[in-house]
Amino acid sequence: MRTIEWNSENKTIQMVDQTLLPQEYRTIECTTIESLCHAIITLKVRGAPAIGAAGAYGIALAAQTSIAETPEELLRELESAARKINSTRPTAINLAWAINRVMKTVTSKTGTKQEILETALEEAEAIADEDIRTNKKIGEHGATLLQTGDTVLTHCNAGRLACVDWGTALGVIRSAINNGKEIQIIACETRPLNQGSRLTTWELSEDKIPVTLITDSTAGHLMRRGKIDKIIVGADRITEDAVFNKIGTYTHSVLAKEHKIPFYVAAPTSTIDRNHHEKDITIEERDPDELRYLNNIPVYNPAFDATPIENITAIITEKGILHPPLTF
Amino acid sequence: MRTIEWNSENKTIQMVDQTLLPQEYRTIECTTIESLCHAIITLKVRGAPAIGAAGAYGIALAAQTSIAETPEELLRELESAARKINSTRPTAINLAWAINRVMKTVTSKTGTKQEILETALEEAEAIADEDIRTNKKIGEHGATLLQTGDTVLTHCNAGRLACVDWGTALGVIRSAINNGKEIQIIACETRPLNQGSRLTTWELSEDKIPVTLITDSTAGHLMRRGKIDKIIVGADRITEDAVFNKIGTYTHSVLAKEHKIPFYVAAPTSTIDRNHHEKDITIEERDPDELRYLNNIPVYNPAFDATPIENITAIITEKGILHPPLTF
Repeated sequence: MRTIEWNSENKTIQMVDQTLLPQEYRTIECTTIESLCHAIITLKVRGAPAIGAAGAYGIALAAQTSIAETPEELLRELESAARKINSTRPTAINLAWAINRVMKTVTSKTGTKQEILETALEEAEAIADEDIRTNKKIGEHGATLLQTGDTVLTHCNAGRLACVDWGTALGVIRSAINNGKEIQIIACETRPLNQGSRLTTWELSEDKIPVTLITDSTAGHLMRRGKIDKIIVGADRITEDAVFNKIGTYTHSVLAKEHKIPFYVAAPTSTIDRNHHEKDITIEERDPDELRYLNNIPVYNPAFDATPIENITAIITEKGILHPPLTF
Repeated sequence: MRTIEWNSENKTIQMVDQTLLPQEYRTIECTTIESLCHAIITLKVRGAPAIGAAGAYGIALAAQTSIAETPEELLRELESAARKINSTRPTAINLAWAINRVMKTVTSKTGTKQEILETALEEAEAIADEDIRTNKKIGEHGATLLQTGDTVLTHCNAGRLACVDWGTALGVIRSAINNGKEIQIIACETRPLNQGSRLTTWELSEDKIPVTLITDSTAGHLMRRGKIDKIIVGADRITEDAVFNKIGTYTHSVLAKEHKIPFYVAAPTSTIDRNHHEKDITIEERDPDELRYLNNIPVYNPAFDATPIENITAIITEKGILHPPLTF
C-alpha cells in the first residue's frame, strides 16, 4: 500500500505507523483531526511529502467528520483544522503547502457541505497522486547523475516511507537501478530517531537494494577513504540561501566539499520556499529524552539543520536539475 | 575511587563497570586473566589510559594467580598473559605500551616468583599513579588554552572514566575550572555506544560542570552558528601523520577547519607511536548489532577513525603543547 492514503470505505486516513518499523509493519487509521495531529507530532507519519499528504487529507477528514450545519460554518471549521494541523511541525514547508492548496481550492468555489467535502478529498487525492508522479520524475532526472558502480550515501529516510510512494532521494536510486545501473547505498543511522537504521535499511532491503548501515559519524571516515561517490538527501524546505533537512545534513555537505564529492538534494518543487530566507525559518527542537540517559542533563536536540546553498552541487526536482545559485 | 585499581586485600583488579553507567555505579573485580580480557572486550573498562592500567595490572594478576613452579615458568606464563590481554583491542597503543613496560621491568631482573609478582605489581601501580600525575600536567598545560566564557565541544569520554582519574580532554576542562575559568561543555552522544551521553554527562554532572548533550551530527550545526569556541578530544594512538580516536573525531576536525575553530587533542606522550604510520594501524570494527535493527542488514561499524595531523591545532601532553607537524 501507499505510506498514507484515504480509506474510502471507513472514510478515514490510513497510514503505515513508522514508529513501529522495522519490527512491525502495521497500518493505523486516523478518525479525527486530533488523532491525525498526534500521528504527525509523534512521527507515526514523517517525511516532508508524506506529511504534506497527511495535511491535505486532514482537511478532507475535517469535512468528513464535521457536524456543521451550513457551508460557511464548515469552512470556518476547515480553517481551524488547517491551523491545528499546520502547527504540528514548523520546519517542513510541504505541510503548509498542501494544506493551503486544499483550502484554496475549497474556498474558491461555492457549494453545499457535501460538495465542499468532495472538493477537499479530490484535491487531497490529487496531491497524493501527484506526489508519486513527481517522485518518479525526480527519479528519472536524478538517475542521469548516477553511474554503475556508484556508492551513494544518504541520510535519514527520503524514501517511499517519507512520501506517498517511491521516494525522493531513494526514488533517484530506485530509478537508477530500474534503468539497469548497479548502485550501492550507505545509510546513515540518523540520530536520534534512527530513521536510517529503522526505515531506510528496511525499505531498501524490502526492494533487495544493497545497503550498508553506518553511524552518522562514520560518513567522514568513509569519504576520506574514497568509499563514497555521491551523496543524495531529501529536503524539508529550500530557501534561496539554504536547504533545511534532517540534522546532520550540513555536516555531510561540509565533508562532501572537503572530499570533492557531489552533494545532491532530491525534492519536489513544492519544497521550494520563495518567500523566506534561512534566518526566517524555525528549526524544530524535539524532546530531550530522545537522547539523554540522565533526567537532569540539558540537551539541545534540533530536528533539522540548514545547509548553505553553495554547498549543494544540484537540486533534483520533477522539473529538472537545478544548479545553485538559485534565482527565484 | 579510581576508575581502576588493585584491590590489595583480595589481590584482584577492581574497576567501575562502565557499561552500567549512568543508571548504576557498580565496581566489579577481575580475578582471572579471562575475566579481565572479557572486561576489556565488553568495554566494562575503556579509554586508552584506563585500558593501559588494566593491561599493567593484568600482568600482576597473572603473576598472582599463577601456579608456576619456577621463575622461568612464571615468566613464560606472563608472556602468554601479555599476548592475550594485548590482543583484546588493536587500535589504542596504551594497552601495548603499559603491558610492555611491566614485562620489560620483570624480565630485566632475576628473582623468585614472589619477587617477580612484587615487581609487576609495583610497576603497574607506578603506571596507574603516573597516569593521574600525567593527566594533571596535561590539565595544567591545556588550561592555558581556555578562557572564561568558552564553550568547548568534546567527543566520546576522555574523562576520569577513560583514565585512572582526572581525565585527558576532560582533565583540561577540570583544570581550567579549578583555575577559576567559567567553561561550558558540549558533549556529543558518541554513537554507537553513547560514551558521551552515558559517561561524559554523568561524570561532568557529578562534578557540577555545566554540560549540554547533543547528537554527534548536531556539532556542525552549532559550529556554523558560532556556538563552539574550542574542541578538545582524547586519543587512542598518535602517529606522525594521524591521530586515532573515537569514530567521529575526523568529522569534527573537518568541521573545525571549515569554521576556523581550534581543534585540540589531549593525550599522554605514551599515546605517541613513533614506529608506525596511519596506514599500518588496524581500526577495530565492532559488533554490527551495536547499531542495527534488522539482522540481515550489512553494517560497517569502525570504533575509531584517523584524523590527519594537519587538521589538529595542537596536542596537549604532560610535557607541554605540541604543534604539528610532529617531528619524531
